[in-house]
Order: sequence, then structure tokens, then C-alpha cells
Amino acid sequence: MGRISVDLYPEQIGVPLAEVRTFAKSLGGSPTNVAVGAARYGHRSAVITKVGDDGFGVYARRALREFGVDDRYVGTDPRLRTPLVFCEIYPPDRFPLLFYREPKAPDMNVEPGELDYDAIRKARIFWTTGTGLSDEPSRSSTMAAVEARGRSGITVHDLDHRPMLWPAPGEAPDRLREALRHATVAVGNREEASVAVGEGEPEELAKRLLDIGVELAIVKLGPAGVLVAWDGRMERVPAVPVDVVCGLGAGDAFGAALCHGLLEGWDTVRTIRFANAAGAHVASQLACADAMPDEGQVLALMGHA
Amino acid sequence: MGRISVDLYPEQIGVPLAEVRTFAKSLGGSPTNVAVGAARYGHRSAVITKVGDDGFGVYARRALREFGVDDRYVGTDPRLRTPLVFCEIYPPDRFPLLFYREPKAPDMNVEPGELDYDAIRKARIFWTTGTGLSDEPSRSSTMAAVEARGRSGITVHDLDHRPMLWPAPGEAPDRLREALRHATVAVGNREEASVAVGEGEPEELAKRLLDIGVELAIVKLGPAGVLVAWDGRMERVPAVPVDVVCGLGAGDAFGAALCHGLLEGWDTVRTIRFANAAGAHVASQLACADAMPDEGQVLALMGHA
Repeated sequence: MGRISVDLYPEQIGVPLAEVRTFAKSLGGSPTNVAVGAARYGHRSAVITKVGDDGFGVYARRALREFGVDDRYVGTDPRLRTPLVFCEIYPPDRFPLLFYREPKAPDMNVEPGELDYDAIRKARIFWTTGTGLSDEPSRSSTMAAVEARGRSGITVHDLDHRPMLWPAPGEAPDRLREALRHATVAVGNREEASVAVGEGEPEELAKRLLDIGVELAIVKLGPAGVLVAWDGRMERVPAVPVDVVCGLGAGDAFGAALCHGLLEGWDTVRTIRFANAAGAHVASQLACADAMPDEGQVLALMGHA
Repeated sequence: MGRISVDLYPEQIGVPLAEVRTFAKSLGGSPTNVAVGAARYGHRSAVITKVGDDGFGVYARRALREFGVDDRYVGTDPRLRTPLVFCEIYPPDRFPLLFYREPKAPDMNVEPGELDYDAIRKARIFWTTGTGLSDEPSRSSTMAAVEARGRSGITVHDLDHRPMLWPAPGEAPDRLREALRHATVAVGNREEASVAVGEGEPEELAKRLLDIGVELAIVKLGPAGVLVAWDGRMERVPAVPVDVVCGLGAGDAFGAALCHGLLEGWDTVRTIRFANAAGAHVASQLACADAMPDEGQVLALMGHA
């Protein structure tokens, strides 16, 4: 549940936006990419979101269907434009984004009254994001959805924090913790976890996330791998080394693979190893939604690594 | 004075936006294109406008300079994004646009206090547009500029009416007439002239424009050519037949050629013939700002036609 966008990728790499001559269109938005990635593993997935009443909205729905993601919960805002995201690509570690989401993205206009609570309760896994809490009515809808689930099944809250998307960034810590109380899994990088539970060493952050009530806390540490804490245990799972072409979407690939491991009932360390490899697979390619791997591709990379 | 944008042209023709795979970036915005076109004829030109504080704003300034247009009057809005325009291209006559100018385009935020009135008064020709009147503070700035000129030299008001860009489209007729009172030349198509002076036959529209006080009234009639009225005379100047690839920018090429003829002191019919050919030159090509012709190219097309 959350963001959807049309991402416009530069066809010229290593240059500023001002010097990019041509852009290639792609489906984007973090939870949308997670749904696409989950479908690649053969799961039935859907996104609760909204697009604009424009050609890019038509494209986003069509792209979802082509990726095997159910678009029945994709609404249309009659007035707002489908958001655009431009990126610059400076491998290996700089991918600045330029968002066109003003005055508001349609995905922030999902109303609590529009939700199919029965479907939300029945889903084996439900994924929400921090950005979904950044503005109303999306914040109320996200909270209504996770409250409706009542911590049944797997409810993942992706801390996904982009301060520039919050009208009032100071509200983020409280909002993130409220959502985490209804989640069974928390995932985010060190900076994102710090926004929710205050700064600290990764082990301390994971512990504080568990203290809020999640059963599985995942702190992503980039090249240093992933710290995972659950059931009285804590482990660092190393990253899979690859030549990074474009880091965008790697976190979403990690998320989709995490869903796959959780749905398959794999043990936690195996799930995180698999998710790390899925993230590495996408990081080694320019594309994002288009590059989401299937299980065989991830296992191949794990064997290779 | 007025609009500036980054135009994203589809590299696939004859398909809806949803099916376009790649876009090419170009400088756009009607009065910006007119300034670019005027520079191609060897004139010193500048645009009074504003961009966003982003990579596309950097590009727009750079593109202006590369086209030989002075960018010293291009301001930067600290908060708003540089506007984007996407188009679909269905030759010969359908080119739908999708504007990303919400919540406001920087070019609508030019303040009267930011204008260089001395430069505005000294310009031999000054060009304003109807869209510049659509919202504040651009409306007050446009009016302050044309009032400062006091009908000295040549002041062209391009009726350029896009109802979707007006927060209150019902205000357009009054605003257009106010601006026309300070203009010496009025130019627009039949629909645009009708917004300003009410519906009627082209001859009647031209007469009403002259009644407001302009010395030269130009009503563009597409394939039926141009009706021009001045100094007690009225003539229809036929269009130059070409195979239309993309009509976008043809009006701006007409405008730049009109400026050239007026500055050179050509007689009115010769000026309009030349402007028709310049418009035809751009209509026969995909590009817009990049396709603005020089004098030799227009004369060649006139000889050919």
C-alpha cells in the first residue's frame, strides 16, 4: 500500500539532469516495486494506491497488469497528476532524485472509506511504508488498514523515510512508531530506523524496534550487510558483492524477496541471505521494476557469490 | 515575457502517452520559443521568466544561452519545480499536451518589483502572452511591463489562450482586453481572438481588435492562412502547404518571424507571408525550439512554395 509513480530514467549515465538528452519510462514507487517483485516469485499481489486521470495513470495500471500485479485497488484522482520521478545516475553510490509530486500525489489521497478491509484482512502479507504516513488522508488510511489486520498474518512496515515528502517532517517519529505498533516486521536502513526510534548502533536500533512490538526487526547497513533481530536472536548477514550500476530499486527487491521468504516459511537467516542477493541483482542493473528477479536468478547469484 | 518549460517529446510517434517508451528533452514555452526564433534571425533577444531551483532550470538557462538568447532576466523560484510539458504526436493535426505546472509554474511568479523597467522600455519589440495574465503575480507584472512601455515601439500581445492554465478562466476576456489596450500588435487564432472580443467571422474579430487600439491585428486561420488588418486595410494571406509532422511550435515560429519582419520594417503582407512560411518550416519537423529557421531557410521554403 502506498506510492506509485512513473520513473523517468536517464539514457545517459554519469551526467547531471541538465545534460540528459533522453529518458526512458518505467513503473516506480517503492511499495509498487515490492508488489511487482513479489509477483515475479509467483505470488498473487496487488497495490492499494491512486494514479492521476492522465496518460501516465493509464500506463501505470497497464504496467502493473503486465507485471502480473492486480490493479483493482488502484484508484484514479480526478484532478492530480500521476507523479513523476527523475533520477541522475552516478555509479556506484549517487542517484539523486527529482520528484514531481506537487501539490500532492494521488497516492496520498487514498481515503479510509475506499479501502476493501475484507481483502486487507485476508492478505497473508501486507506491506505499508513510512511515506504513506507523511500526509492525509493516506496516513489515516494506512493506520485504518493496519488496525483492521490486528497483527494477524504478516504485516510489514517499511520505514522508507524521505523527509522532503513530509509537509511536517517533525511528525515522522511519532507516526512511524504508531504504525510499527501494528506491524509484525519492521524494515529500514540505519537512518530510517533512527528517525523512528532515535540514533544508536544498529544492534540498539533493532532492539528498540523489537521493544515496540514487531517480531522481526531488519536494519539494512548497505555494504555492511543487514542486521536482523528476532526471537531473542540477532545476526549480521553479509551483503552480496556486485558491481553497482544503479542502487535504485535494490531496497524494493530486498523487500519483495523478504516477502517471498516469509510467505514460504524459510528460516530468517536464509530469507535475509536471499533478500540480500535479490537486492544485489537489481543494483547490478540500470532498471528497477523491470529488473526484479525470479527465484532462479537470485539463487544463481547466491551460488555465484 | 512569460512561459518557459522543459518539453519532453515522445520518440515514438502516433501512440498514446501510455505507450511512449522514451522521451527527448527540449526547451519550450511559447514566448521562450519566440525569443529563440528571433535570435535565429540575428536579433538580440531575452526572456523575462522564472525557472525552478532544479536540474531542469539549469538546463533551460543553458539552452537559452546556446540558442543565443540572453538569460539575465531568467529568475529562480526557490520552491517550485521547472514545469514540464509532455506531448503526444498524431500527425497531421492532433498534438495533445500534458502539463506539469502544479501547484504553480515559476514563470507565473515573476514579481513587478523584479522587472528591469528601463530595459523593458528600451526594447524595440516586446512580446507578452495571454497565459501570462492567467494568474498573479505574473498578471500584475505583465501589465506593469506593458504600461511602462506606454505603446512606444512595438508591443505584441499574443492572445495565447489555454483555459486549463487559468485558475478562473471566466476572467480571461477582461484581462486580455486590458493587455490589448497597451499593445500595438495583436496575434492569435480564431478561438483565442473570440475569447478576447467575442465570437464572429475572422474579419469581424480583426476589426474588434483594431477597435481596442492595436495598429495591427492578426487572426491565424490554420490551413486557411492568416487574416491581417491594419491601417484601414484587410487581407487574407494564404498558408504555405507542407506535410505537417508536428504542429507544436509553428505558432511560435510564426511569432518570431513576425518580430523579424516588424523589426526589419518590411511591409505587412510580406511579413505575414514570411511568417506563414516560418510556421510551415517548423510544422514540417518534429522539433520546436530546435527547429526555428534562419532567414535563408524561410526564403527557400517561400521560393519552393
